[in-house]
Amino acid sequence: MCLCAAIMMAYGVAGAQPSPQAVRDQVRQYRQQHEVEIVRAYAQLLSIPNVASDTANIRANADFISTALEKRGFKTRLLSAGAGSPVVYGELPSPGARHTILWYAHYDGQPVDKSQWALDPWLPVLRDGLTTDPGKTIALDSLHAPLNPEWRIYARAASDDKAPIQALFTALDALNAVKLPIGVNLKVFFEGEEEAGSRHLEAIMRQNTDLLKGDLWLLSDGPVHQSRRMQLYFGARGETDVEMTVYGPARPLHDGHYGNWAPNPAALLVDLLASMRDGESHILIPGYYDDVRPLSPSERQAIAQIPDVDTQLKQELGLAWTESKGQPVAMAITQPALNIRGLEAGHVESKAQNAISTEAKASLDLRLVPDQKPDKVQALVEEFIRRQGFYIVHQTPDLETRRAHAKIIKLNWGSGYAAARTSMDDPAVLPVITAIEQTLGTPLVKMPMLGGSVPMYLFPDLLKTPVVGLPIVNHDNNQHAANENLRLQNLWDGIEIFAGILTGTEKNWNVTAKK
Amino acid sequence: MCLCAAIMMAYGVAGAQPSPQAVRDQVRQYRQQHEVEIVRAYAQLLSIPNVASDTANIRANADFISTALEKRGFKTRLLSAGAGSPVVYGELPSPGARHTILWYAHYDGQPVDKSQWALDPWLPVLRDGLTTDPGKTIALDSLHAPLNPEWRIYARAASDDKAPIQALFTALDALNAVKLPIGVNLKVFFEGEEEAGSRHLEAIMRQNTDLLKGDLWLLSDGPVHQSRRMQLYFGARGETDVEMTVYGPARPLHDGHYGNWAPNPAALLVDLLASMRDGESHILIPGYYDDVRPLSPSERQAIAQIPDVDTQLKQELGLAWTESKGQPVAMAITQPALNIRGLEAGHVESKAQNAISTEAKASLDLRLVPDQKPDKVQALVEEFIRRQGFYIVHQTPDLETRRAHAKIIKLNWGSGYAAARTSMDDPAVLPVITAIEQTLGTPLVKMPMLGGSVPMYLFPDLLKTPVVGLPIVNHDNNQHAANENLRLQNLWDGIEIFAGILTGTEKNWNVTAKK
Repeated sequence: MCLCAAIMMAYGVAGAQPSPQAVRDQVRQYRQQHEVEIVRAYAQLLSIPNVASDTANIRANADFISTALEKRGFKTRLLSAGAGSPVVYGELPSPGARHTILWYAHYDGQPVDKSQWALDPWLPVLRDGLTTDPGKTIALDSLHAPLNPEWRIYARAASDDKAPIQALFTALDALNAVKLPIGVNLKVFFEGEEEAGSRHLEAIMRQNTDLLKGDLWLLSDGPVHQSRRMQLYFGARGETDVEMTVYGPARPLHDGHYGNWAPNPAALLVDLLASMRDGESHILIPGYYDDVRPLSPSERQAIAQIPDVDTQLKQELGLAWTESKGQPVAMAITQPALNIRGLEAGHVESKAQNAISTEAKASLDLRLVPDQKPDKVQALVEEFIRRQGFYIVHQTPDLETRRAHAKIIKLNWGSGYAAARTSMDDPAVLPVITAIEQTLGTPLVKMPMLGGSVPMYLFPDLLKTPVVGLPIVNHDNNQHAANENLRLQNLWDGIEIFAGILTGTEKNWNVTAKK
Repeated sequence: MCLCAAIMMAYGVAGAQPSPQAVRDQVRQYRQQHEVEIVRAYAQLLSIPNVASDTANIRANADFISTALEKRGFKTRLLSAGAGSPVVYGELPSPGARHTILWYAHYDGQPVDKSQWALDPWLPVLRDGLTTDPGKTIALDSLHAPLNPEWRIYARAASDDKAPIQALFTALDALNAVKLPIGVNLKVFFEGEEEAGSRHLEAIMRQNTDLLKGDLWLLSDGPVHQSRRMQLYFGARGETDVEMTVYGPARPLHDGHYGNWAPNPAALLVDLLASMRDGESHILIPGYYDDVRPLSPSERQAIAQIPDVDTQLKQELGLAWTESKGQPVAMAITQPALNIRGLEAGHVESKAQNAISTEAKASLDLRLVPDQKPDKVQALVEEFIRRQGFYIVHQTPDLETRRAHAKIIKLNWGSGYAAARTSMDDPAVLPVITAIEQTLGTPLVKMPMLGGSVPMYLFPDLLKTPVVGLPIVNHDNNQHAANENLRLQNLWDGIEIFAGILTGTEKNWNVTAKK
């Protein structure tokens, strides 16, 4: 195939398949004709309680989803490792396709505090209001299309993270109805304990590396850009954390009688913390930035094109400045962060006592970026603390130890994991970007990485497969809180984009591969 | 009177009065003959509950003490200002005396938590054990002299601070019994709400400046030196304190999504605090030490002669070092201290959350020394904080203020007061030192100042009269806690020393005045 023919095919000019825009229009038409049916089907999925610890209902979810996949031609299996919730795995091969997309979502949801919910979290309803004022309820049995696309479905997991599962089902239904074949092999991997810390995810992946072979993982989780524009994210920061305790006198001392004689652990702690970072978030620990992978030109360009959110955020948050030297948040989070998430020593305000406390504590959360490794970062931090004159222990020191060492600090490290960032120029990724942008008719927001930590590193590091994040839900969805919801337009958009990926990626891939 | 005659008189060689040692021996003999009677009399005083808020019992205490003073020849008055407990004031002139000693003690005690007491705090008993193991009770009605001087009287206020009141009564009784006249005019001033913050002390003093004229105040409160040696203290640190709040984003933010973009108030706070003092308690605020009065040669010498307590303290407290550059505690506390008494931001350990908190708080207690003034210190601290780039507010800032200023700190100052330090070479003080040392036959421990803050400044600043602290009670008396007690030997010593002061001071004064 010559390059020009490939381009013609890619844009749908030649061949039997309609153009991406035509696919989108057909899928949209299908959706418009089935809006009420889609919402009712989704309500069924949402009505099954899905807290990871609720074993029986988790199984009911897995069975419901397996059945739904099988109806759509998938071969399914439940993947388990130990006592955790099973992963619902399904395969839908596409005759003649040479590439495989692996699709991740999770069907479990955050635990709920029902007292905080306007209605039952597992009795899904449509409401005509926003998250802060859910508005009036619209009964599901009296719906008439067209539905107002600003209406929202309220239920636990409506956005996080059953929405991509429903969008995928509907995209497949639409393509089937309009007789458009999906052009790529498809594997789905729906986790059942993401909100419980993905305790068995790594083990399940390790046990199924052959099954999970493919060209690209799509991680459908999280919200679209705050500007409501669709986005892909290419990575996420890693994380490690440490609890610190600095020791003073073995019993609290009167700070009048002993102040400026007895070592004050709060003063030692603030000195140490202040020495670790400057006033603008730069970390002062030698070697800390040595392994930081520089941003590529594509990544820098993508950041420059991300819609401005800083202005609005600063307004909302009452901030006259940021500690990022004027860089936008999307750029700031591509760098390591040393966050002080807690300080505790003695007492303040009405509880303040004239005392030198026996210990002072800090909790640090270290966000890592590629290619920092948690164990190396931990070693650098410990070496730095030692050079500040501290004697490091990992257990509470006894009196003899305290008598023997001037400045003692206890460090308790949490487990950590590495960051990940897939290249925007990766040949496995470009076809998906193209498929989505052709479907949308507008450029995507391309976010080099999320600031928060999700274990995206498992895909490249363990499964040796690139991964990109493809969220579809509204950013104002009350994720993890009461009154979680999904804006209908986000579901509609998700269906079209997923259909575009299913139909467009394989041919784009072949173009890219041939170039 | 020639100098040699004055010296002869001072040492009791010439004139009608016996030597200080002879006075001591006569007083001791009286006490030995009356031990049981003294303990029973003291138990009567201790059996009247004396928490400052218990108005009826406070009045019963005041009446009991007034009656006891009148029996001993005093003219008495109750001094009040507003609704607080009255001061019991009494005068006992000495014919021919040219000098007046004013004697301060307080008759109220700390509130009690009866559940923590081995016995009723207002049913005084003798016990044969130490504070940690009170031992067995010895019934007051079956006592036989001689009493074991290591036995202790257990009751609220047994040490703090009815002990000097009883010691003074008994000293006067002994001198009366052995027909030794007190050689000095005596005024007593027994406060009734010291443990409730001395809320009316300044007002009562202001209203009675003429009544309270005299040459020297003896402040009988607090314990003797930890070595059990008698001590005088010549001053106390002053104090001011401040509650600080540094502001971050108006709502808590995920520290992954926003860490190293959103200002972290805990990081701002530790930077500020670290900039205020170095690792060895030296305060880095410009001008902070400008008003610090240097120690006199007498004060330096006195500190050098104070028995070592640091070694034992460090052992007890599990400390391998002090932040005083190797100086003993008695020297360290003659300097200003900037104590961090509390830190609070976010959460630590099991409650740690991946969040940038909205605010971070610190509580500072600033111990002042002569001649620092609280208002000037507060201004220096504020100026320093401003130079660190902070915008200072004294009320919680609204969103508009937060949007307008990058680094905002709220400061809430507590009321403060100045330090005091009477010169050891003050001619009003030397006669008392001499009288005590002659009585003891050994040198006193002379403590230039206490590290803790008591409003000693009122005596020199408001009443224009020097003051020294003259404690008599044991240091291990469980002051302010359950099972407060007084070691009998400390009461016996107090009686002798007080008698020595009453009989010896006037003639020493005249010697000093003539020199």
